[in-house]
Amino acid sequence: MKIGYFEFNNVYINASSATVGKKEYEGPLGHRFDAFEEDEYFGCNSFEEAESEMIRRNLNLLLAKQNLSESDIQLIIGGDLINQCTATSFAINGTNIPYLGLYGACTTAVESIICSSIFIDSRHIENSIGLASSHFCSAERQYRFPLEYGSVRTPTSQNTVTAASAFLLSKNFSKVKVKKAVIGRIVDKEVKDANNMGAAMACAAVDTISRFFKNSTLKPKDFDLISTGDLGYEGHAIAREMLNLEKIDIGTNFTDCGILIYDKEKQDTHSGGSGCGCVGSVLAGHYMRLFEENAIKNLLVIATGALLNPNSVFQKRSIPAIAHAIHLTSEE
Amino acid sequence: MKIGYFEFNNVYINASSATVGKKEYEGPLGHRFDAFEEDEYFGCNSFEEAESEMIRRNLNLLLAKQNLSESDIQLIIGGDLINQCTATSFAINGTNIPYLGLYGACTTAVESIICSSIFIDSRHIENSIGLASSHFCSAERQYRFPLEYGSVRTPTSQNTVTAASAFLLSKNFSKVKVKKAVIGRIVDKEVKDANNMGAAMACAAVDTISRFFKNSTLKPKDFDLISTGDLGYEGHAIAREMLNLEKIDIGTNFTDCGILIYDKEKQDTHSGGSGCGCVGSVLAGHYMRLFEENAIKNLLVIATGALLNPNSVFQKRSIPAIAHAIHLTSEE
Repeated sequence: MKIGYFEFNNVYINASSATVGKKEYEGPLGHRFDAFEEDEYFGCNSFEEAESEMIRRNLNLLLAKQNLSESDIQLIIGGDLINQCTATSFAINGTNIPYLGLYGACTTAVESIICSSIFIDSRHIENSIGLASSHFCSAERQYRFPLEYGSVRTPTSQNTVTAASAFLLSKNFSKVKVKKAVIGRIVDKEVKDANNMGAAMACAAVDTISRFFKNSTLKPKDFDLISTGDLGYEGHAIAREMLNLEKIDIGTNFTDCGILIYDKEKQDTHSGGSGCGCVGSVLAGHYMRLFEENAIKNLLVIATGALLNPNSVFQKRSIPAIAHAIHLTSEE
Repeated sequence: MKIGYFEFNNVYINASSATVGKKEYEGPLGHRFDAFEEDEYFGCNSFEEAESEMIRRNLNLLLAKQNLSESDIQLIIGGDLINQCTATSFAINGTNIPYLGLYGACTTAVESIICSSIFIDSRHIENSIGLASSHFCSAERQYRFPLEYGSVRTPTSQNTVTAASAFLLSKNFSKVKVKKAVIGRIVDKEVKDANNMGAAMACAAVDTISRFFKNSTLKPKDFDLISTGDLGYEGHAIAREMLNLEKIDIGTNFTDCGILIYDKEKQDTHSGGSGCGCVGSVLAGHYMRLFEENAIKNLLVIATGALLNPNSVFQKRSIPAIAHAIHLTSEE
């Protein structure tokens, strides 16, 4: 048995939705998202409530796309970055949909797709929605400093993406199939710089990519696109170098959602985007549209997460990381 | 289809382990746990590291019971109460076992058993370990006050249990079968007192119990034991009253892990125990031994979680709650 490596039968992503903030809308992929909001408060009284409001709007968008109501949905699996994942629980409070909470750091979008796929593949349920989100303002004050400080950020730091993503999965045929998955294991190379999470996560991404290609018969050239989640410029360059050392020729179609989502020159986002909403929104918005447009047929997404909290950083502990991968295809 | 209600084929709990702190060892169930530690630091430098050390020791105990090594295990699913679930991620760092992080508040032990059961039932994996833990000292300073304050607690408050629990699940026959499960939905009755989480969680427990009996052909009298997770004295009394109003005769075998774990008179734990480790350790230690001793044949465990964080309390938001249930049986 191939440990942590999965091949699914007839699990499809029927729809996806992405709702983003102003900065993400102004970025290069702005037109690829379903909705955006100018107001960072999303009309609420706090950034935390704003994140829940964003998730709620985005969930409603997903249901509207498929003409479904909440009572049609059998399971929600998901989470966010706020302590105790309250952004998600307040967002779906009142929907009456059975809910399993995840904490997968910035891997959550892909973790929720993998878990949904297992539930559907097991034939115990017919559909499931995977949720993941992050909000720059709620994350910044929880993980770093209150925004009012106006603290200067280091060049390797990343900008938490304000975005909510949602994916509807079922056995019903549609264009994008969840074909394979790798569940990551924790990798810790003793990186301790919380302003360089890309470096910590790169090692986990490489471990998961390497396990994927060892277990499947596929090669990188079989993919139109191979994308990490939120390594950013720094982490993505490290990952490429490490893959070279492992003799994996990852090719030219290797990119990163954290690199794509912002304009490096104009948007002052340093090493790129990060957060659960980063890979979530780029996958739900941009990549899913690439399938629709027949621009890609095979996509490997490797979502990356740094398993730290501010306390563990103050305690000078290392930053363990993890990466989960899915292979999506429009080929039968 | 019965939404959120599951019946499994041939999923067994092959082994469980529970490691607890001094207070839990001195309680009425002390002799039912596998190991305990006098030192609340577990020999480490911080309470957070102590929690990880407790999880690690307990995981090793579980593996030793079955004469397994880490490389035999195909998946770990679990989490804890520390922000971003770092207690678990630091604990299993280095094991090389694929890992899915959960955040289910105090439902985590049961959530991890349900998710493990689905993975095993789907035949994608052969075994999985479910983990859940909490530590009084790490929880107290994160959720309430630094211990040094010596703050006085209200009578309805509960005492976070210092305990780690682990469950090994597989398709291999053993005495205890995971027969049915209910995945909870979020219930919010606008309780806002963070020192009375039992009241908030009671509503979720009743919702899940009610859904269990509506969907299954079973009645409460078919169970030797029906146990909520950590409602404590206050919440458990509320739950019993609400079940009466719903015309569910829950009977005399209805108890709560938070009530059982401490001696109310001697241990000054107010409304009882709480935390992921509460239902986790009572199930892994006491209830699993009741099966071994043929004292029970059918057990319904309803783990309860309050989906709050200190911020949401300061922002005067309500306390949404959730409850997940499993039916364990030694009957074929």
